[in-house]
Order: sequence, then structure tokens, then C-alpha cells
Amino acid sequence: MTRFALTLEFDGTPFFGLQRQPHGPSVQQSVENAAQRITGEEVTLASAGRTDTGVHALAMRSHIDIEKDIEPFRLMEALNAQLRPDPVAVTHCEVVPDDWHARFSCIGRSYVYRIANRRAPLTLERDRAWQVPQPLDAGAMHEAAQALVGHHDFTTFRSVQCQSASPVKTLDRLDVERDGEHVLIHASARSFLHHQVRSMVGCLALVGMGRWEVGRVKQALEARDRQELGLNAPPHGLYFVEAIYPDET
Amino acid sequence: MTRFALTLEFDGTPFFGLQRQPHGPSVQQSVENAAQRITGEEVTLASAGRTDTGVHALAMRSHIDIEKDIEPFRLMEALNAQLRPDPVAVTHCEVVPDDWHARFSCIGRSYVYRIANRRAPLTLERDRAWQVPQPLDAGAMHEAAQALVGHHDFTTFRSVQCQSASPVKTLDRLDVERDGEHVLIHASARSFLHHQVRSMVGCLALVGMGRWEVGRVKQALEARDRQELGLNAPPHGLYFVEAIYPDET
Repeated sequence: MTRFALTLEFDGTPFFGLQRQPHGPSVQQSVENAAQRITGEEVTLASAGRTDTGVHALAMRSHIDIEKDIEPFRLMEALNAQLRPDPVAVTHCEVVPDDWHARFSCIGRSYVYRIANRRAPLTLERDRAWQVPQPLDAGAMHEAAQALVGHHDFTTFRSVQCQSASPVKTLDRLDVERDGEHVLIHASARSFLHHQVRSMVGCLALVGMGRWEVGRVKQALEARDRQELGLNAPPHGLYFVEAIYPDET
Repeated sequence: MTRFALTLEFDGTPFFGLQRQPHGPSVQQSVENAAQRITGEEVTLASAGRTDTGVHALAMRSHIDIEKDIEPFRLMEALNAQLRPDPVAVTHCEVVPDDWHARFSCIGRSYVYRIANRRAPLTLERDRAWQVPQPLDAGAMHEAAQALVGHHDFTTFRSVQCQSASPVKTLDRLDVERDGEHVLIHASARSFLHHQVRSMVGCLALVGMGRWEVGRVKQALEARDRQELGLNAPPHGLYFVEAIYPDET
């Protein structure tokens, strides 16, 4: 048995998320089916993150175990051929030790949330960004975001379906920057609660629009109450961009 | 009658090009139908460029004439509402003099061609870039491109369907630059022949792959023979990005 680490890029639009679902297509199912067609083996994909319906990945990290003798480059090429026409691509593939685990070995995860701040509907970026027509004050959003950085109880920013044992997480980075008509939010932590990034982005957008004062984000955090959440940003602006492992830092 | 200049952004994927076609959907038809639903008038769209099936625009310039009394901002909003769900958006709208013509007043046109230079199939960029798996030497491509800049007979780089009276054009700029895994080609001229940008990009890609020597692009130009064309790049990497008018320079 050989363990292969895969870097996956995918367009989340046609999938019911990364994880296998009984009721619809998933990235996991696409990759497992492709691997099975190549090897004839039952293959299980483990991944650093569990992205929702419509959420994208530029560099998800995953692994699969295979008995068949195959070089990493050949496996990558074969997976990419078998994955067509699904919008999933393997951009890197390497052999890793048997105790390397894409999910449990991962010590850092980063997301980028992409807002298209414009009145006109999206064309080329449809399903690739959240269109917000009201002018956003990215400086105020960044200022408000800093209240969320650090070790906190993020109950306010947690989905009711969240399976995490504790609502307490350490947020390492939450930066907001304007890039032309786009506003980008960069979030990094060891791990996130379900819907945490989208919930934080939703509240920051209310600050950007002027509907929330900067200090209200801190108040919402401290309330530890989902009812205090202002807005959950839609999934199609969210990108999983990086997973970090101890041997790679 | 009031003449409105429109700036259009569109995803060319579902269209049989910008110009109205008898056999399928076009950007022109979408915009004209939207304007007719708003005004009840027969409206004709004129545009700076005539893009092919699959070619995109970030800022196409067009105009329409309307009898109905309507403010530019309200017209833009109404057009964007009526254009849904077609991937066409009006990003700017203003009143212009009756003798301003989107096509005939235009004195400069710019395109960007986007190559994704990677082995992995495209996911988020599918239909948005040309995937070239062989490593491209962008420096060699740029060097070869300079032979095309200037006043030349571009017969080699002209489609057999081209309706231009003359194959002689002045190419003002043809720059190739690498941006991470992307290679971008910037082309500017007063006007272009049909398929000229895609034909030039195709030959430059052969140079980038090492299949053509740098000097072969100049030889192909000087041959003035379509048979010398190495490759016509696919439409989905091409973006119309700018039209220039005398009063705006």
C-alpha cells in the first residue's frame, strides 16, 4: 500500500460539497470513482477541509491509499484524464509516509473570500464571487475584523449543523483588502467551525455597507449567540487556498 | 432620439459571437431584446468589435439610439435587470453626441489573450483560458512577437472569412508576459483582421513550445500566405479589453 498526497483544484458549483453525499455529486465521489477506474481498488479520499456546496478550492490537500504499483506523475495524469468532464483537477501528487494524514496532520488552513463590489451583475465571475452592489468600506471591514483575531468562543459564527466538539477556536488572520472592484478577505486558522468564514464575512460586509458600526462585530462575538449573526455570506465567493503540514512549514 | 454609449462585459461561452446571427444566440440579440422590452422600440446595437463564438469582453463599447426619455443610470439598471440570466452586463452608460459611433468613431482596440500554462485540466478557468501543457518560453514568444509590430500585410494571420478591404494593418503593440502559471498576450491596433489575434497567438505559442524558432514568425508574416500559419489559438482565451475614442485619449 502506498499513500499519495494530492493537491486538488475544483469549481464547487456543480457539487454538493467536497464530502461524499447520499443525495448528489461530490468532489470526493468524483475522485474516488476516478481512482477506482484506474486501480480497480476501493479507494477512500481524506481531505484537509470539508467544503460546502458551491465552495471552491485552489489547493485542497487530500490523500488516497493504493495497492497498485504506480508512479505519482502517472497517477496524477490518469486521475486528470478520468476526472473529465467534472471540474476537478489534480495539480500535484506525491508519495507520503503512511502516517501522513491530509486531515489529521494538517495544522493550518487558509481561505480567501472574494466579493465583487459593483452594481452590474456578474458575467465571467458568476458563481466565482459574491456580488455586493453597495459601496464597501474595506478599511472599516479590516478594522472590525481584528476583533475576531485570536482565541475566542465563535458560537455566534457557527452553523447549527456544526459538528465540532467546541466552539472555541484560534483565528490567526482575518485581513480585508481592496483590489480594484474586488474586496478580498483572507482567513487563516488551525481549523474553522462550520460556516465560520462565511458568517464572519457576512458581518464584515454589513460593516462595509455602513449598516453595522465597526464595534458591533466585537459585540456579536461576545454575545456567543447565533441570533446575533447579521448575515451569512453565500458559498460561491469562498475558496479554500492552503493547508499547512508540520514538515512543510 | 438620444444616443447612449454602453460598456459591455460578457462571457462569450453561450453565444455565437457578438453580432446577431440567424442560427443562434448572440450578445447583440440579448441587448437589443432587453432594450426593446424597456422602451417598446426597435433598437439596434452597434459595437467597436465583432467578436467570435466563445470570445469574451471585459469592456466592449457599443451604442443604441432610444426615443423614450430615460436617464442613463436608469437605462443601465433596467438593461441589467432585463439581460438576466444571459451573461452580459452593462458596466457603464452615458449620453453621447448623435455623431459618436461605437464602431466608426473608434480609433484603437485592445485584446488580451490568456494562456493557462499547466498540465492539469482547467476547472475554475474552464472556457476562460487556453490550457497549454507544454512549458512555454514567454521571453522567446515576446521576442518573436516584435517582428509583427508595425505596418504589415497580415495575410498569413487572416481568416478566409475576413471581410476587411485590405490585409494591411498597423499593429501598435504585441507584448507577451508571464504571470505565474499564466502567459498573457497584449495586442493593440487601430483595427484587426478577422482571427488576427488568435492566429498571431497560435504561432507565438509554437515558438514558446520550441516547435518554431523565433525567426519563423517573421518568415510567416513575410510569406503573406495563410498556409504558413502554424496554429489558430482557440477563442475562449481571447478577451476584448478596450476601445479608444478621440475625445477620450
